[in-house]
Amino acid sequence: VTDDVAALVAAAANGSRVALARLLSAIEAGGDPQRAVARLTYRTTPAYAIGVTGAPGAGKSTLTDQLLGVALSRADVDDVSQVAVLCVDPSSPLSGGAILGDRIRMQGHATDERVFIRSMATRGHLGGLSMAVPDALMALSAAGFPLVVIETVGVGQMEVEIASAADTTVVVTNPGWGDSTQAAKAGLLEVADLFVINKADRPGVRETRRDLEQMLDLGAPRPWRPRIVETVATVGDGVDGLWQVVEEHRVYLNESGELARRRRTRATAELSRALALAAASRATDVTGAAGFEQLVDAVLGGTTDPYSAATSLLASS
Amino acid sequence: VTDDVAALVAAAANGSRVALARLLSAIEAGGDPQRAVARLTYRTTPAYAIGVTGAPGAGKSTLTDQLLGVALSRADVDDVSQVAVLCVDPSSPLSGGAILGDRIRMQGHATDERVFIRSMATRGHLGGLSMAVPDALMALSAAGFPLVVIETVGVGQMEVEIASAADTTVVVTNPGWGDSTQAAKAGLLEVADLFVINKADRPGVRETRRDLEQMLDLGAPRPWRPRIVETVATVGDGVDGLWQVVEEHRVYLNESGELARRRRTRATAELSRALALAAASRATDVTGAAGFEQLVDAVLGGTTDPYSAATSLLASS
Repeated sequence: VTDDVAALVAAAANGSRVALARLLSAIEAGGDPQRAVARLTYRTTPAYAIGVTGAPGAGKSTLTDQLLGVALSRADVDDVSQVAVLCVDPSSPLSGGAILGDRIRMQGHATDERVFIRSMATRGHLGGLSMAVPDALMALSAAGFPLVVIETVGVGQMEVEIASAADTTVVVTNPGWGDSTQAAKAGLLEVADLFVINKADRPGVRETRRDLEQMLDLGAPRPWRPRIVETVATVGDGVDGLWQVVEEHRVYLNESGELARRRRTRATAELSRALALAAASRATDVTGAAGFEQLVDAVLGGTTDPYSAATSLLASS
Repeated sequence: VTDDVAALVAAAANGSRVALARLLSAIEAGGDPQRAVARLTYRTTPAYAIGVTGAPGAGKSTLTDQLLGVALSRADVDDVSQVAVLCVDPSSPLSGGAILGDRIRMQGHATDERVFIRSMATRGHLGGLSMAVPDALMALSAAGFPLVVIETVGVGQMEVEIASAADTTVVVTNPGWGDSTQAAKAGLLEVADLFVINKADRPGVRETRRDLEQMLDLGAPRPWRPRIVETVATVGDGVDGLWQVVEEHRVYLNESGELARRRRTRATAELSRALALAAASRATDVTGAAGFEQLVDAVLGGTTDPYSAATSLLASS
């Protein structure tokens, strides 16, 4: 398996989209295939990751599509020769490769060779998206993508966790009070580096901005105060400005040392999760191991209890 | 702590309800206190456990109350000198000691010295009710209760799991189709040894019975075909008959060897859960241990990946 994975990583780094897709499928599959890919791809410097999140219907895919256009048009200046988009839907058990809706909404770049779009879902394996997303980010990094957009559907705890895999987190809202309140509830206010009020040609923009500013005023002061940008993604209005603020944030992250701090926090969380996974898989192994049935007998016979038996099983394995 | 727990177990075995209540609080608290109690109480032969489950409002508490009356009135014949009731609400984060509603509904025995009633909830600790209920059963066994009724609110996966801690599982339905369909969906059909159509003075009893019989016909044939008993718990109608079928099932369990098989399955499940808990707590310990930060650095530096780092941390700890 490792030889195969090494060949796939090499091919992906050489530009093979088929090889890259197979690496991402291995990550989605979980278990040994996922670990085999990680062993090779974590050697790379991570790509710069922009998280785009917000309620369904806020216009995230259209905005992402427009953002790709701006990023690629400035390829010379910002060194963005190609861009990958990971579409993540934590609520959907459906998997992968292509969610038609996303491709349609990103039709501006569906046939662009410099753009790689991939939907990810869990297939219900242990650890799920909390490890699959960072692992996919590393696989895309190893494949030579300098920029990855992680687009997440929905606003909930899971989205906040996925957003934490990004360097710059963009929270998309719409004119109207509901969205921003929802964002605050879900903890997105804490992780947002940048708010977009999309569909800004509709009424209520001023109120939404005021609402967001007030919520930011109420929160703890931060060295980088999240910016609020207005866009009309369907016609591309404000997208240049959005890209500019994203770049400003990137410069801030680099110069302040915050990028290194964030990536350290990320690596710590990933190692903790990998530990939990390894421990759980160890417990499963022991369940099938010699000595287990005898200890069941001992519990039944009243000579031990499940906790003491578990401790001795783990110690002796 | 162990000395204190030993004193409490001894006092509980001597009839102290205060000591017993404190043991159950230790179990609810989880972690070390729960394990310390288990170490002493798993030496006992388990009490005979009747699970009573069904949708909210089906009349479980009233039925349990009546059942206690019948059981205690036959103390000489069936050797039931005292009975404990565990009220479990998996959906409620509220804890313990006394849920007023249960006590009120069981007012027939709220002041009866031979009856011990206790509500249990998780407090959100790892493992939760899946271990707390079997552990509480063993604590009540150690305190000398020959019979424990485990009453569960609601019909869902969690209820099925809790029901699996009982020797005889009674599923309470009401006249009308909805309940039995719900029971089938939740998997209660598979775990039920006995169906009660409570509130049998209302219309629809025949249809509900037919519905249940049909569902049982559709299922795999079982050596013990679940019985269907009609009751009107509020006035005590049919409760004697219910107790009789419970006793028949108990005799069947003993004579067929099914009781030993079920308790083995239970012990296996408990040991597996204890293993998962021990493994998870080991992972948490390692997160704070020496070497963890260096491995975070190694992941960041690209010399290892989270999975390999986790494996080496667990191996070296």
